[in-house]
Amino acid sequence: MAQVRRDPIIGRWVIVEEREKSFGPADYEKEPHMLKQGAVCQFCSGRESQTPPEVDAIRPGAYAPNAVGWLTRVVPNKFPALRIEGDLDRRGVGLYDMTNGVGAHEVLIETPDHSKNFADYSVEEAVNVIKLYQSRSASLSRDKRFKYIMIFKNYGQSAGASVEHAHSQIIATPVNPIRISRKLEAFREHFKRKERCLFCDLLQFERQDGSRIVRDEGGFVTFAPYASRFPFELMIAPRDHRFSFAELSRHEAESLAKALKDALLRVRLGLGDPPFNFVLHAEPNLHALPRRSGYWDTLRDDFHWQLIVYPRLTPVAGFEWGTGFYINSTPPEEAARHLRAVDVSDAALAAWRAARGPRRQPAGQAT
Amino acid sequence: MAQVRRDPIIGRWVIVEEREKSFGPADYEKEPHMLKQGAVCQFCSGRESQTPPEVDAIRPGAYAPNAVGWLTRVVPNKFPALRIEGDLDRRGVGLYDMTNGVGAHEVLIETPDHSKNFADYSVEEAVNVIKLYQSRSASLSRDKRFKYIMIFKNYGQSAGASVEHAHSQIIATPVNPIRISRKLEAFREHFKRKERCLFCDLLQFERQDGSRIVRDEGGFVTFAPYASRFPFELMIAPRDHRFSFAELSRHEAESLAKALKDALLRVRLGLGDPPFNFVLHAEPNLHALPRRSGYWDTLRDDFHWQLIVYPRLTPVAGFEWGTGFYINSTPPEEAARHLRAVDVSDAALAAWRAARGPRRQPAGQAT
Repeated sequence: MAQVRRDPIIGRWVIVEEREKSFGPADYEKEPHMLKQGAVCQFCSGRESQTPPEVDAIRPGAYAPNAVGWLTRVVPNKFPALRIEGDLDRRGVGLYDMTNGVGAHEVLIETPDHSKNFADYSVEEAVNVIKLYQSRSASLSRDKRFKYIMIFKNYGQSAGASVEHAHSQIIATPVNPIRISRKLEAFREHFKRKERCLFCDLLQFERQDGSRIVRDEGGFVTFAPYASRFPFELMIAPRDHRFSFAELSRHEAESLAKALKDALLRVRLGLGDPPFNFVLHAEPNLHALPRRSGYWDTLRDDFHWQLIVYPRLTPVAGFEWGTGFYINSTPPEEAARHLRAVDVSDAALAAWRAARGPRRQPAGQAT
Repeated sequence: MAQVRRDPIIGRWVIVEEREKSFGPADYEKEPHMLKQGAVCQFCSGRESQTPPEVDAIRPGAYAPNAVGWLTRVVPNKFPALRIEGDLDRRGVGLYDMTNGVGAHEVLIETPDHSKNFADYSVEEAVNVIKLYQSRSASLSRDKRFKYIMIFKNYGQSAGASVEHAHSQIIATPVNPIRISRKLEAFREHFKRKERCLFCDLLQFERQDGSRIVRDEGGFVTFAPYASRFPFELMIAPRDHRFSFAELSRHEAESLAKALKDALLRVRLGLGDPPFNFVLHAEPNLHALPRRSGYWDTLRDDFHWQLIVYPRLTPVAGFEWGTGFYINSTPPEEAARHLRAVDVSDAALAAWRAARGPRRQPAGQAT
C-alpha cells in the first residue's frame, strides 16, 4: 500500500509508492522524448476490452457498457497513484504524520475519435466531458474517506501526458492538497474580515480594470491572473458567486464548456499548439467535512471555484523548485492582449488544421 | 522595470518582466532540446572579456581581475531577472500588492575547466565555490533592500541550465520566496511551542531511525526527506544547530564541500548522471530584518539552514502544478538505500569517465 506522508515543515502531503512497486533508477526516462505510440491505441472506439471495465459513460442510445457507441467514457487508471481499498489509518511515525494511500484514480476518455482534442469538440461534446466531471465528482464524493476530488488534464509529453488520445484524469485523495488548503484558508480569512468572497472582489476589480480579461461571456470570465506563475496562464471562473462545481446547472455547464473550448482554442492557435495542463480548483468534498467544524457553515459564502489553464512553454529550473519563487517572462496584461486578439473562428481553425496536415493515427487503428 | 507581484490568495510573489522586454509566444521553446553550444564557451578561461566584468573571484596569485588565472569567478548575469538600480516602491494596485523588481542576479563560474562539474572537483575546488557563495551572500546582504539571497545550481537542459560550463546562480530578492516564508513560520511556530529547533528534532529522529540517512560525516548529514516531493531528493544539513549559512566556519565549509561533492557523485554514478538542481535554504538577510520586529531575537534559536538536491528524473504534470500535491514513485528509504550503496571511490569515478568517453568541447575552445 502506498503511503501519503506529510512534510512536517511545509505541511505538504506526498504520496509515496509502496516498496514492492517502486521505481529503481533505471525506470526513469532522463531524456525528454516524444509520446510513445503503441501499435494500437487502447482508448480508441473498438478497443474497449483493452481498458479496465468502465465506471461511467455517456452513450446516446441503448448501447451496452464496454462496447462501441460511447461519446465519453471513464475507466479506472491501470496504474493508479492511490487505491480504492483500505482504511485511512491516520497515524504518527516519530515526529511525522501519515495516512494510507487510499483514494481513486480514474481516466476520462473524452472522445472516441483519436484525431480530436478539446479545442476540436463541438459544444455538445465539450458539455459531455464537463457532465462526466460532475457525475464522477458526485459519485466519488459519497465516499467520506475522500477529502478532495481533483480533476485535471495533461496535453502533450512535456505536460505529463503518457497517452496521445484525448483524456482527463480524476484523482480522489484522502487529504486536501496543500494549494487547496492554503486557498481555503485565504478565502476564509478574507470572509472573516470583510464578509465578502475574496474571489468576487477579485473578479469585480478585474472586470472593471479590463487589462487582463480575455473573455467575459455567458456568466464565465476568462482572465490572465495578476501574479501568474507561468506565461499565458489563464483562469476561468463563474462571474457570479458560486462555491460549488458539483452544483453547476446544465445551463452553466454549457457556458463553461464554451469558455474552456474557447480558451484552449486560443492557446492552440495563439501559442502554436503547446503542451498544456488544466486543473479544476473545486470545493472540497462536503460529505467529508465534519458537520460541526464550522467550516460547513461558511464555505458556501467564502469559497468560489476556478479552473486554471497552464500552457507549458518554459522548463522549470532549480530556482522555482526550491523556493516557490517563479519568474514569468510575459506580463499577464500582454498575455491577455495577445490571447484576446486570436481569431477563433471556424475558418481559422480549419486553416490551422490544413497547415498541420492530417493527424497520424497509430497503425492497426480500430475503425 | 520588472515588477514583483503578490498573488492575493496564496501569498506567493512573482517577478513579472517589463513590457518592453517581455517574450512573445514565438520566443519560447516548446520542444525540449539539448544545450545549444556556441562556437566558443564564454565561461572558459581565456574568454573573460566576453562576460560582464567580474564582481568577485578567487585567484591564487597576483593576477589581475578579468584575466586568466582565476579558480572561481562571479559575474553579473547578462540577462538578469532583477535589476540592482532603483527603489522598491512597495505599493498597492487595486486589491493587489507589488514592489519594483529590484535585486541582483549573478553567475558564479565554478571552474575554468570546461570538462569538469561539481562531482569532479577536488575538495579545494569545491571549497572555493562554497567560499564564494559565502562572500557574495555577505556582500549582497549589506544592501537592506534585499530580503533574501538565493543560491542555486541548474545542471542539464531539462533542469533549466542554458549553458553547459559548470556554474551556479545567486539572486538577491526584495521579498522572501514563499517556501522560505512558510519554512520560517513553521520553524518559529515549533520553537514557540517547544523551545526547540524543529530541524534539530527532525535530524535527531532521522539519525536514530537511520533508514533515510545516506551519509553522516564531519558534522553534516545527508538524507532523503521523509516526504520527498521528487525521487532521490536529498537534503544536506549541519548536524548540530546552525542558523546561519553566512557564519559557516572555514572548517565547516570544507565539511560541506565534501558532503555536497559526495552527494552529487552519488547522483551521477548512482542515477546515470541525470539533470539536477540544488538550492540553498539559508537564513534570510539579517540586515534587512527590522530590529524591533522580534524576529531578530529568535531566529538564531529557531532556524536551521539546509541545502536540497533535486535530481530531475520525472516530468512534472498538471496534477502537481495545480495542486502542489506531488507523486513520488521512489520511497525515500529506497532512495537512501540505493544512494548509500553507490561506490564513490576514485576508481569508480575513473571507470565512469572512461565509459563516457572524452567530453566534447566546443570548437574554437580557448586553451
